[in-house]
Amino acid sequence: MSTTIAFIGLGQMGLPMACNLQKTGCTVHAFDLSSQACTKARELGLGVAASAREAAEGAAVVVSMLPASRHVESLYLGDDGLLAVLPAGTLVIDSSTIAPATVQAVARAAAARGVLMLDAPVSGGTVGAAAGTLTFIVGGPASTLEAARPVLQGMGKNIFHMGDSGAGQVAKLCNNMALGVIMAVTAEALALGTAHGLDAKVLSQMMAVSTGRSWATEVCNPWPGVLDNAPASRGYGGGFGNDLMLKDLGLAVEAALGAGAAVPLGELARNLYALNSRAGRGQLDFSSIQQLLGAK
Amino acid sequence: MSTTIAFIGLGQMGLPMACNLQKTGCTVHAFDLSSQACTKARELGLGVAASAREAAEGAAVVVSMLPASRHVESLYLGDDGLLAVLPAGTLVIDSSTIAPATVQAVARAAAARGVLMLDAPVSGGTVGAAAGTLTFIVGGPASTLEAARPVLQGMGKNIFHMGDSGAGQVAKLCNNMALGVIMAVTAEALALGTAHGLDAKVLSQMMAVSTGRSWATEVCNPWPGVLDNAPASRGYGGGFGNDLMLKDLGLAVEAALGAGAAVPLGELARNLYALNSRAGRGQLDFSSIQQLLGAK
Amino acid sequence: MSTTIAFIGLGQMGLPMACNLQKTGCTVHAFDLSSQACTKARELGLGVAASAREAAEGAAVVVSMLPASRHVESLYLGDDGLLAVLPAGTLVIDSSTIAPATVQAVARAAAARGVLMLDAPVSGGTVGAAAGTLTFIVGGPASTLEAARPVLQGMGKNIFHMGDSGAGQVAKLCNNMALGVIMAVTAEALALGTAHGLDAKVLSQMMAVSTGRSWATEVCNPWPGVLDNAPASRGYGGGFGNDLMLKDLGLAVEAALGAGAAVPLGELARNLYALNSRAGRGQLDFSSIQQLLGAK
Amino acid sequence: MSTTIAFIGLGQMGLPMACNLQKTGCTVHAFDLSSQACTKARELGLGVAASAREAAEGAAVVVSMLPASRHVESLYLGDDGLLAVLPAGTLVIDSSTIAPATVQAVARAAAARGVLMLDAPVSGGTVGAAAGTLTFIVGGPASTLEAARPVLQGMGKNIFHMGDSGAGQVAKLCNNMALGVIMAVTAEALALGTAHGLDAKVLSQMMAVSTGRSWATEVCNPWPGVLDNAPASRGYGGGFGNDLMLKDLGLAVEAALGAGAAVPLGELARNLYALNSRAGRGQLDFSSIQQLLGAK
Repeated sequence: MSTTIAFIGLGQMGLPMACNLQKTGCTVHAFDLSSQACTKARELGLGVAASAREAAEGAAVVVSMLPASRHVESLYLGDDGLLAVLPAGTLVIDSSTIAPATVQAVARAAAARGVLMLDAPVSGGTVGAAAGTLTFIVGGPASTLEAARPVLQGMGKNIFHMGDSGAGQVAKLCNNMALGVIMAVTAEALALGTAHGLDAKVLSQMMAVSTGRSWATEVCNPWPGVLDNAPASRGYGGGFGNDLMLKDLGLAVEAALGAGAAVPLGELARNLYALNSRAGRGQLDFSSIQQLLGAK
Repeated sequence: MSTTIAFIGLGQMGLPMACNLQKTGCTVHAFDLSSQACTKARELGLGVAASAREAAEGAAVVVSMLPASRHVESLYLGDDGLLAVLPAGTLVIDSSTIAPATVQAVARAAAARGVLMLDAPVSGGTVGAAAGTLTFIVGGPASTLEAARPVLQGMGKNIFHMGDSGAGQVAKLCNNMALGVIMAVTAEALALGTAHGLDAKVLSQMMAVSTGRSWATEVCNPWPGVLDNAPASRGYGGGFGNDLMLKDLGLAVEAALGAGAAVPLGELARNLYALNSRAGRGQLDFSSIQQLLGAK
Repeated sequence: MSTTIAFIGLGQMGLPMACNLQKTGCTVHAFDLSSQACTKARELGLGVAASAREAAEGAAVVVSMLPASRHVESLYLGDDGLLAVLPAGTLVIDSSTIAPATVQAVARAAAARGVLMLDAPVSGGTVGAAAGTLTFIVGGPASTLEAARPVLQGMGKNIFHMGDSGAGQVAKLCNNMALGVIMAVTAEALALGTAHGLDAKVLSQMMAVSTGRSWATEVCNPWPGVLDNAPASRGYGGGFGNDLMLKDLGLAVEAALGAGAAVPLGELARNLYALNSRAGRGQLDFSSIQQLLGAK
Repeated sequence: MSTTIAFIGLGQMGLPMACNLQKTGCTVHAFDLSSQACTKARELGLGVAASAREAAEGAAVVVSMLPASRHVESLYLGDDGLLAVLPAGTLVIDSSTIAPATVQAVARAAAARGVLMLDAPVSGGTVGAAAGTLTFIVGGPASTLEAARPVLQGMGKNIFHMGDSGAGQVAKLCNNMALGVIMAVTAEALALGTAHGLDAKVLSQMMAVSTGRSWATEVCNPWPGVLDNAPASRGYGGGFGNDLMLKDLGLAVEAALGAGAAVPLGELARNLYALNSRAGRGQLDFSSIQQLLGAK
């Protein structure tokens, strides 16, 4: 690709994604509000702009990877937002995990200016971001997705088209709600088993090849020492933070309120992660829910 | 193997297990309290005894596969129970899913008579029972497991030794508690997604390769039409009944009460399956929880 | 009082409240979007205006009692809203139960025009509305409350000042969240007791003088036949609808999400009322949760 | 009364109950396994026996007030138990809160020896025990209750006959399950309100006269400083311990499992009190659940 791409948001996910895009031959203009993040990006060889607007100048594509709805609104909307200056025909890909309603509001504003927009939140974590094997969960028009496909393939492997604008976010929230519950019930099972004298490692190995298997038994086991590479085995450092899971579960609950849906396990899990945060583990990996539910 | 084996309990799981044992060259004396089950066993070429005691005569091994704790107690304990007549050195393998405390009581009675006993509940369902690919989740002395290994290998593939007597049951309950919660939260996710206009099949396909993946997204998807072979696509017939899951979750809760453990998601799931049963779906596959939580 | 009062919203609560105000000597100009409600109001002797704006002409006070946030926004905000025409110094009392954030938005718009505003949701139901014994749960400036006090006393008995704008709504939601949970756990207790052969009436009588007592045991018992005047004894007709409780619990959950608060029982109750609605009891009294949780 | 009564169990509840019986003119032979408790009883003027058997010699009535099922079994059953020596016609009143199944087992053993037995757990706490205003929640034959009535009236005010043997325990568990949930949701409501800037005292006062009212708002408010006499205002000391509530909720869940009943809120509350215990507050008053759910 020889496209010029503005990449806004250079955190743990955004930075490796931007680097992967540059490796495909694209010209990347990167930006982050944190000067620390910008420095790190420069060290990795990215061209860093002085502002989001400067990054977007001359770019055919804008990719954003930001923490929450308010950052996305602030980037695109209002008199200072990018949509006030992007030319018609620009392609905007927002890979943040945010409220479907926010995505839809931004997409409407984009459409009003002839800007093409996708919501494309990802699955795969920092490992997938670095390896370029992310899964993109996309909402927006099919034709826009086709235009964006080469860009997405520069950062990931699987692409799922979930429906219209916002559908990518809804699907991501559905997945993460399931994940949050699955992690917590795995922690319950390990606490229950060990309370009866079982070895957490053997129990996990059995479950990992049985009907109770999941990403929590196989990849990110919450019990310390079961998997050497899991956050649980390094004091729950790194990984996907408890408060990020709490945010995603809050967005899922909001989506459920909007649709009048019943998500009793999802809502209970939200409360468990809230209690885990109250107990001082908000910044640890979300598998630290094991500490709340029972651990040695 | 040329062992003589008494096999008690010829239901949907027990019958194919007994047939597989016979295929290994063992002599199988089968029995079930239901004459209908005995007839079916005879049609499949098994030798059927007139009673559990008659089946056990001359058998070096007794395998039992029964519905609930009370049936296991009734088979082995009391003046009429098998333990009153089994010679010392007989190997007893109980593959029922029952309360750990019941297993331990029977194992104590067995030990008092020199009978060797394992609890060896299984994972893999009727498909695994027929194919001889069950996973055995074993509790009891390691030496007893070694003696039993050839018999277990005649019916299954994986064998996990979880610890002392009862540990197999505890581990099975941990797995099934996780499974019950995972199925229900998958149903919540599919209901939430479709309420926002997503296609359940595409959402399931995305989740099946993402962090929300599980046996419920891949093998037994609860949304009708997503997987052709899943119970959901045939009116929730067949499979693992709602009331069996309710029973297993009840046993898990009992185990949690005994250990003072917190299993909030497990206990909430128990109540959801109880409500699903109250709504008339007790005999359907447990993935019919989708009907309770939201379905077209 | 000789005040002229515009009263908007003549439903089951609003109509008797407006009538009580007229009895104090005020001139009431009533209005409702439903012509049926207007007819009923005329039959009861109220002066009915042709529009909300006409009702508000010359009124020193506007009282509104509407179903949901969007109705309140629509009444007051925008080019067609009342705030565009109300003179500075007018007193606005909104007694609807709505989102605190909506109240705050309307109050800000009111303040910008010099209009004084209170949120004053009520407790006491249709019985209290008719008898003039409502409790007002008030948010807004203390001086505005003093100005409004004679009007509120024309419709109710107790007045609680909870804090600034929106505080009345937050407090109302706290109360109703507790109520929703208390009703449901009372239903659980009655189902559990009767499943063990207890008589629901005797059990209720005991609880009503013990530590488990509540409005649900004493006034609105969910078990049919325990209290002759309760909705449960007339097929759950009348009373406070399941879907209204569901709405209030949704608002409470939203308030919890906004504050990062843990309300596990409140959120579980929300899901139980959602399941009760899905089972076809959305229009029945919320004590029909007994039917979901177990009843003869 | 001139009856001779053996009183077994001289804890915070039993001791004042025994003293009240003595005040009615009865001869009380008291006993407790703790010598400390016996000393305290002697200081209050009670006659203390050297063993439960010695206390029961010549007594027409035995009253027991013990911590858990196993203590009651140990007191009455087995070769060393009281039932082995009590003459036919003796009246046994067990006021402990224990499993209904235990009560029924003891009652059957009693009946086999011609001993009359009631389960008569109480409501009213240490305050009610001291004042002689306890409520007795009774299971057993009506004729036995009539025989016991004068004794019960010596210790309490209200007597509810709930049904056959065990029914008193079931009813007590229903009440306490409701209480445990009500306390926790009151704590949720206070945490939610204060997170939005409300004053816990004003919020409690409003709720106490509204539909959310309960023993938790009026008598044992969980927020420090709202009620001067509540445990919350003295560091959650005294009162009804978290782990006692956890025990009672465990018994309620067991009763629900036995009956196939759905008690989702009761089971969630059990888990919340288990988490509160894990957080180190097991010995504090159960209103310390406020600390788990959110407090300043």
